[in-house]
Order: sequence, then structure tokens, then C-alpha cells
Amino acid sequence: MTTTTSRESEIGRLLIRAEDQPGIVAKVSAVLSDFAVNIVSLDQYSSDPEGGSFFQRTEFHHPELSEQADQLHSALSAVLTDDLQAEWTLFAPIRRKRVAIFASKTDHCLMDLLWRHRRSEIEMEIVMVISNHPDLKDDVEAFGIPFVHVPVDRDNKAAAEQRHLQLLNELVDLVILARYMQILSPDFLAKVGVPVINIHHSFLPAFIGAGPYQKAKDRGVKIIGATAHYVTEDLDEGPIIEQDIVRVSHRDTARDLTRRGANVERQALARAVIWHCEDRVLRHGNTTVVF
Amino acid sequence: MTTTTSRESEIGRLLIRAEDQPGIVAKVSAVLSDFAVNIVSLDQYSSDPEGGSFFQRTEFHHPELSEQADQLHSALSAVLTDDLQAEWTLFAPIRRKRVAIFASKTDHCLMDLLWRHRRSEIEMEIVMVISNHPDLKDDVEAFGIPFVHVPVDRDNKAAAEQRHLQLLNELVDLVILARYMQILSPDFLAKVGVPVINIHHSFLPAFIGAGPYQKAKDRGVKIIGATAHYVTEDLDEGPIIEQDIVRVSHRDTARDLTRRGANVERQALARAVIWHCEDRVLRHGNTTVVF
Amino acid sequence: MTTTTSRESEIGRLLIRAEDQPGIVAKVSAVLSDFAVNIVSLDQYSSDPEGGSFFQRTEFHHPELSEQADQLHSALSAVLTDDLQAEWTLFAPIRRKRVAIFASKTDHCLMDLLWRHRRSEIEMEIVMVISNHPDLKDDVEAFGIPFVHVPVDRDNKAAAEQRHLQLLNELVDLVILARYMQILSPDFLAKVGVPVINIHHSFLPAFIGAGPYQKAKDRGVKIIGATAHYVTEDLDEGPIIEQDIVRVSHRDTARDLTRRGANVERQALARAVIWHCEDRVLRHGNTTVVF
Amino acid sequence: MTTTTSRESEIGRLLIRAEDQPGIVAKVSAVLSDFAVNIVSLDQYSSDPEGGSFFQRTEFHHPELSEQADQLHSALSAVLTDDLQAEWTLFAPIRRKRVAIFASKTDHCLMDLLWRHRRSEIEMEIVMVISNHPDLKDDVEAFGIPFVHVPVDRDNKAAAEQRHLQLLNELVDLVILARYMQILSPDFLAKVGVPVINIHHSFLPAFIGAGPYQKAKDRGVKIIGATAHYVTEDLDEGPIIEQDIVRVSHRDTARDLTRRGANVERQALARAVIWHCEDRVLRHGNTTVVF
Repeated sequence: MTTTTSRESEIGRLLIRAEDQPGIVAKVSAVLSDFAVNIVSLDQYSSDPEGGSFFQRTEFHHPELSEQADQLHSALSAVLTDDLQAEWTLFAPIRRKRVAIFASKTDHCLMDLLWRHRRSEIEMEIVMVISNHPDLKDDVEAFGIPFVHVPVDRDNKAAAEQRHLQLLNELVDLVILARYMQILSPDFLAKVGVPVINIHHSFLPAFIGAGPYQKAKDRGVKIIGATAHYVTEDLDEGPIIEQDIVRVSHRDTARDLTRRGANVERQALARAVIWHCEDRVLRHGNTTVVF
Repeated sequence: MTTTTSRESEIGRLLIRAEDQPGIVAKVSAVLSDFAVNIVSLDQYSSDPEGGSFFQRTEFHHPELSEQADQLHSALSAVLTDDLQAEWTLFAPIRRKRVAIFASKTDHCLMDLLWRHRRSEIEMEIVMVISNHPDLKDDVEAFGIPFVHVPVDRDNKAAAEQRHLQLLNELVDLVILARYMQILSPDFLAKVGVPVINIHHSFLPAFIGAGPYQKAKDRGVKIIGATAHYVTEDLDEGPIIEQDIVRVSHRDTARDLTRRGANVERQALARAVIWHCEDRVLRHGNTTVVF
Repeated sequence: MTTTTSRESEIGRLLIRAEDQPGIVAKVSAVLSDFAVNIVSLDQYSSDPEGGSFFQRTEFHHPELSEQADQLHSALSAVLTDDLQAEWTLFAPIRRKRVAIFASKTDHCLMDLLWRHRRSEIEMEIVMVISNHPDLKDDVEAFGIPFVHVPVDRDNKAAAEQRHLQLLNELVDLVILARYMQILSPDFLAKVGVPVINIHHSFLPAFIGAGPYQKAKDRGVKIIGATAHYVTEDLDEGPIIEQDIVRVSHRDTARDLTRRGANVERQALARAVIWHCEDRVLRHGNTTVVF
Repeated sequence: MTTTTSRESEIGRLLIRAEDQPGIVAKVSAVLSDFAVNIVSLDQYSSDPEGGSFFQRTEFHHPELSEQADQLHSALSAVLTDDLQAEWTLFAPIRRKRVAIFASKTDHCLMDLLWRHRRSEIEMEIVMVISNHPDLKDDVEAFGIPFVHVPVDRDNKAAAEQRHLQLLNELVDLVILARYMQILSPDFLAKVGVPVINIHHSFLPAFIGAGPYQKAKDRGVKIIGATAHYVTEDLDEGPIIEQDIVRVSHRDTARDLTRRGANVERQALARAVIWHCEDRVLRHGNTTVVF
């Protein structure tokens, strides 16, 4: 069970996506004002002031939010669904995202998330780590987090994904691929029912696919990068949440790029996960709005 | 005379600073909604959700804004002044800031602003360039901008500032010190009556005062920077608007630092001026909120 | 005629590319030492200590270098050509590269180079600016630099390139494409006989070809970049000299990306040109070694 | 006991600092050539071509380096000490630096070093971790590294430092202060006899002393940083090895700055330690030359 501190229990968030039209901010603010909630933070974006898409993230505070949640939901529904035909989500109060992390043998992204989790830097509960290799079992369990080894090979891929779905079933709000190095099938993505965030070890759309550091070395680039994105059926083509880069030179070997890129990967992934868990990321077609 | 395009004449901006209290966003949005303006962009920040300062910048669109301006001002006044005791400014419609640039012999920051102005990258009109040296007269006049040479030496500083005040009198909304290299007196700052933005060639608060690149070389720093800030009576201590940096190494001489820093100076200054002219910068004590 | 200051007349440079083998540094240093030159700077790189390629750039000082140049060349030839079978170039003394800049209507990269040239930041003489449009004629001529308008359209492209070759004939050491926006034919590249540096307005290999900022907007990247590279027959595939980037967000329109990218383009191009003119860039297959 | 792989046993390094004079590179290269070593990497820097200081780092390979080490040392001594009056150090072969890490309660820098050590990213052996608090004992011992708790308070500081000296005695080549948060006495620094690297959580020389993130918040800077430097008697005034930065905004609280700065601290410290352990850092007065 997810527990929240008394403080988190007083905080709510409202995410809205609608066709742009005059008066959205006013109508929503009026509802929130009627419930005497204090808007702590409001971010708003219109893709085009005349006829585009409207996005809004509002974080607010109310000392007795849980008691008011049902009525607040009804009042917002009257405005947002009936009047504005908006897509919207209300977290009242917010609760930590329940997360499963998929990893392989490479540890830096996984360990970075575990450490940030231990330092309470991310609004998440790590429910389990799933890996196709047993190597990191001890490291993960040292954090008190369950580690599940699900071997994957050419012949059992469908069965392995079936096992993944059983493990995740209803237990998580987010899957993170922390250098998992396996391609998820469209069937898995359709059934998992929660967002999946991947870290790709290149500055997308450069160097799609396997071996990006060697490709970067061969091409002679002077900067390498990493990209955290939502996973879609199209490999390395999903909506980008965050990217970061580091300068390299001719002296760096492909192995150096791998080592130096590791720092960038873990930072880009961590920021993407932090933002996702704070409900700051809204999808907009195949791109993202990050508030 | 400042002319605005028909498009600019339909755009308004509202800046608010108040003690934080529930309902500000809702009350202001309601007024804007009553006037059928469409909120294009809304940014809001509370320094502390419980009892801090509240800042808001709203940009909005109305096809007949000028005709509505007086009534909108009155309606906002009832809410913002009478009810919320807020400080606020309404630009309805927005108009380009009228700017005077002070320069000396160093050209890179001045020329960068002139070029960006010519490319319409900044919402400003450059009314004049004032310099204590005649060197850049031809370069400035090639842009069709008046150049005024006001020599400054130890003995005539007060008279020179008097001349500056006469030149600026009521004509400008902003003064930019583009590597002017002269310290403005408290008296001048009190009388000029408009914000003054300076670019300091170091990463403040490191290397306050003269000769920062030589100081940086002597200290052996691995990164140098530049700082754009509002000028106050305390030298190099005013509210920071923007900073930027560049990596350096032991191979860079103080002259190299000067050359490499020039790129950083002009970029930090340009961003600060762009943001100021778009009314994105609100002061908060000795710091800034940049929306 | 290229003139050098008395100081430049005392400085020489030696560039070497060879198969790696023990003793190269020692043999070359011994020759330089015999001529009593003082090595000011020596950079060396081996792509693989065991059997790779060896690169060396040496900058040195001698008070009467011109008088010694022929004998020094002979002595180096005995070691570098006869003994080591190296490719090598001796500049004794160095002289400023003679440069032609090709531009179109977009001014930011061109003007940046002209300004840096005026400030003596780049070891080059600008012999002429060639453009397919007349728009920038006055701006270029204000710097005292010849401007040649050579219109290019679908039907006269071969003739235009013929005209280019006549203009450049024997007069330049380098061609810079400062957002020229025209593809050079393989025939032109074969005949021009000097290196050609281009600035591409994306972070290659992402967004090859036309319209990279719109492509970046569509893909939703969080960082955009620019790439300065030597031009080869394969469009946007030549050896990369320098890249730089800037962060962007969902709020940036394709037009914003164009404006923000302009800063990055001019800086990446300027650095690439500075390094090339200081003989710091050696080609290594389709990549570069930048000392 | 320090063990080196067979590969490391074939690699040597030579560091030189001398008054600049013609022929240094040639003389040293000649000696190395006589011993048939292959120069893998050579970096050289003159602070001023006419009368400054000369620095050189040479990395070389010889299949039977250990057998040759004594004779090589003698031959270099004849040139470097007798002829050139240089300061110099020969590592033949190189061996991993033996390191003691001092930490307190803050874990991010310490854990980052332990992880990089486990991944073999740094040429070091971690001999022990010393802390004035017991909190991180389990985390350190999980890596198989001894953890020594030496409490420090106002009254026992001298005794604690005495204990430190006993622990370190002859066992280490380097001390790293990984957010140790205690000021070392001049007496300790005089007696410890090895370099001490500290990470300061600001962009020095800005925000010297305690509480830099709060100071940064109060000053309203737009960029924060971290500085890795050698420790001298003057607090936060020692030679800077590496600095790094991250952008912040008015929305970041002092706590956010602390969290975001942690990433920068661990990276700047890691790079400084990597470079020191690869003998890339030479002191030059109160600055560093980093090859």
C-alpha cells in the first residue's frame, strides 16, 4: 500500500488537455476557488493561441483535501467534461507512483534510481526490479527491494513477457527501462496499461538502434547524448521527455564514450522519471509538454 | 513614436506581485474572462505556498484591445488594488520598450544588440546610443541609429551624467549598459527613473569589480562566465537576470578569456534584454523571477 | 598580398600524419632542436598505440625563421618523407589563410565572421564574399570587403559554379559556406582544390538535409544543435569539426528554434574556422583530430 | 599490495616541470627513443614561450618496462636533473594510486566514487573510508572496503587528526574529502604528506565557506556549481582541478539547489580524481595544468 505523509495528503494536482478556447483558466480557477483550495503552482501552454491545443497543470493545497475530493471531482467534471470537452486527470490527493524497473547487466541507471529513491528525491515507490540476468540481484536486494529474474532468450520471449505481465498486473503505475536492452513487443505494450519510459544511449534521432556509441565514434561527432522517452511500438521513436549531452573528442574511444555517456544517461533518465512522477509531462502527439 | 503592428495591438500583458492568498488566479481570470480576452500564456509562482509572495504574468489576446483598455484597467483595479492590495502593471496593448544603449570602446555587446534589433529579435526601439568615446560612431550610425558622444573624465562626471539625463528625459523605458565601463552615481540612478541593465564580465558573485578575466586567470578557474543584472547603488550587487558560462583551460591566457568571454557576455545580455522587453522579469527583493 | 606581423614571421607550424611507430616524436624533435627552434606547443595523438595512425601538430618559434625555412624543410623531408613515409605540411613561417565566404540571404553567420575578422580573432584574410543574392552587399562592403553577386538558379548552376571557380582561382586557401543553402556539385568540389567548411543547422547526424528546425520541432527534441564540417560529395556527411547545442522546450516554435539555433550556428562555425586557420584540424578518415 | 594487470606493467609515465628553454622535448624524446619506448601520448604546455614555465606529460609503452626502469631513471636524471634542472617524476611502470576517502553523513560523492571504483573507471585502490559519523558504515562495507569511524568534536579534533595520521601512515598516495565537512588543520596537512582533494559545493571563488547553496539562493544566481581542488592551508583557496555547473531558476529552493548540486559535485569530484590518478594534473603556483 502506498502511504503518503500528512503533507502529501493535502496536495492535489489537476492536469488538463483541451482544444484551446477562451475562458478555460477562468472556469477552472473558479471551481478551485469555490472549494477554497490555494493554487500553489499553475502552468499553462497553448500550442497555438488561435485554434491549437491547450495544456494546464495545476498544483494546489487544501488542509482537508481527501474529504473534499469527491465533490471537487464532480464540480470539475461539470466544467471540464460537460462544458469544455477536455481530457483531464485529478490527483486528490497525489500519491506516489508505483514503479517497476527493468534492467539487464548494466548497473549505472538502475543504481542511480535506487540511490535517488533512498534519498527520497523521486515521488515513487519501487515495487520490484525485473531483470533478464541475475547479476544485480544482491545490489538490488541490499536496498530492500524485490528482485525478480526472468530470463529472456530468442525462444521464450513471448512467455517471458507473459510472466512480466503477471508480475506487474495492477501493481504498478509506471515501468522504467533502465538500460534493459530488450525490445518490448507491441503486444506487451498494449497489455501493460501503464506508461513505459526508456533511456536510449544516444541523442535521438541520431543513432537509432543498437550500438550508438560505436556509431558515434565512427561518425566522429564532437558531442554525445542520451534520450529519455516514452516507449511506443516504433523503436526509439516515442515522445521525448528529456535529453542531455556531453562533449567528447577524437581522443575518446568507443569505450570512453560508453563510460562518459553513462553519466548522461543516468541524469537524463532520472530527470524524466522525476518529472513524470510529479505529473509534469503531458503528451502532445508524438512530443511532450514538460511543465 | 512607437508603432506596433496590428498584431501587437491585440496583445496585452498583466504583471502582478502580491502577498500570497487563495483565489488570486481565479479572481483575475474571472475579470479577464468577463472581457472575453483569451489567455495566451499564464505563468505563476509563489515563493512559499504558505505566506510568501505571489507573482503572475499573463499574456492575452483581444481583437479590439485598445477600445477595451480603460474599462479593463478599471475592472482589474477593483480586484487587484482594492481587494488584493497587489502591485500590478497592465500593458494593453503592449508597446515596444524604448531603449538607450550606453557603450564605450568595446563593440561586441553593442553590435550584437544592434544586429538583433535589425533582425527584429527583440521587442524594442533603440532611441540612441550614448558613448564616452567616439570610436563606434560610424558603426552605430550605419544602422540608422543616433549616436551621441558624451565624454566622461574624472572632473566632469557629474556634468556628463546631467547631460545623460537631459538626453534620456522621458524618451526611454530602459537603459542598457553594453560594456559601458563607467560606474553610474547613485544620484543618476535615482533620477533616471527607468531600469538599467548591465552586463558584468564575470560569473557573479565571483570576481566583482574591475579586471575579472585577469582575476579568473590568476585564480585558475576552469569555467568563466558573464552576468546580466539590474543596476543598483551597490556595484555588481543588483538583481541577476541571466548568467552564462564557457569552459576554459590552463592554455587560455587572460586575453583568450577576454575573447571567449565576449561570446558569453553578448548572449547573456541579449537574453536578459529580450526577457525584460517581453515583461518576463519581475524583481523579488534582490533577486528576479523570470517567467 | 598576405602580410604578416613581425611576430607571425617568427612562428612556424608542422603537421604530421603517419603510421604509428616508435621514435617519431624523438626524430622530429631532434631536427627541430638542431635548428635551435623553440617548441611552443606540441600535440600528439595515436589512434591506437599498437598499429594505428599517428598525428602531431607542433608550433615553434625562431627569430629568423624565414631564412632557415628551406634548410629546415630539407632536413624534415629526410626524416618525415624518406624515413617515416609520413604525410606532412610545414608552415615556416605561418601565413594567414586567404578565405572566400559564400553566403545567401541569411546574415548571422556571415556577419559574425566579418566582425571577428575585424577584431582580429581569426588568422585569416577575407578575400571576397560571394552570394547568390544581392541583399547583403552593403553590409559586406561596409567592412571594406569585395562582394560578388553570382545568381544561381536551376538552369545556370553549372555556369555559376564555373564563375565561382574563376573568381577563386589560386586566390584562396579556404572556402566557407556561411549558410549558403546551395549544394555544391562534385565537379566543383573536385576542382576548387581547397577545403570547404559548411555550417549545418542541426546536430548531425540528426536531421540531415533541408528544414532541420522544423524537423526538430516535429520530433519534439529537447536540445537543438549545429555542426561545422568539411564538405564532401555526400551531403551533410563530411568530417565534423565542431558541434554545439542549446536547450529548447515545447514552448519554442520552429521560428524560435531558428532564432535560437542561429547563435549556436555562428559559434560552432567560428570555432571551426578559427581552428582550421590555426592548423589545428587534421582529417582522419571521415573524422577529424582537433588539437 | 597493489597489483597491476600485465598491461599496466608495460606502461610508464613521465611528468616534467621546468623553466622553459629550447630543446626540452627533443632531449627527453631522445632518451626515451634510446630505450625503444613508444610514446603513446605526449602533452606539453609553456606558460609563456619566452621565459615561462614548461610542463610535459608523456605516457609510453615498453614490453619489458620493469626491467628497464632503473636504467631509464638514470638516463633521464642525467638530462632532466643535471642538464635542465627540472622537477620530474617517473612512474615506470604506473601503479594504481592508493586512496583514503574521508566522508561524513552525506553519501552521494562517496557512493559515486565507490561505484566508479567497482566499475574500474578510476586508476585507484580504495584502502579505507574514514568518517566522523557511523551512518555510512554498512554501505561502504558492502563494497568490501574497510570503514573506520573516527568521531570528531570540538574538543578532540587534534586527537582525531592524530588518529587519521596513524591510519594513513605510509598506506596511501591520495586523500579525498568526499563532502567531509570538517576543516583540516595546517598541522595535519603538513604531516599527511600526500595530496588532498576536496569537493566544494560552489562555483569558487563564489560562495566560499559554509552554506553555499543558501547563499546562492539568497543572491539569486541563475547557475550553481561545484569545485574540486587541492586542499591548502587557505580554506577553499587551493588550486582548482575541475569545476562544473547546472542551471537553476527562481523556482528552485535552497533544498532543490542542494539536490541538483549533488549531481554536479559528484561529477566534478570524479573527474578530478580520475585525472589525478592518471597523473594528468600538474600544479602551477596556485593553479593547475590538466593534460
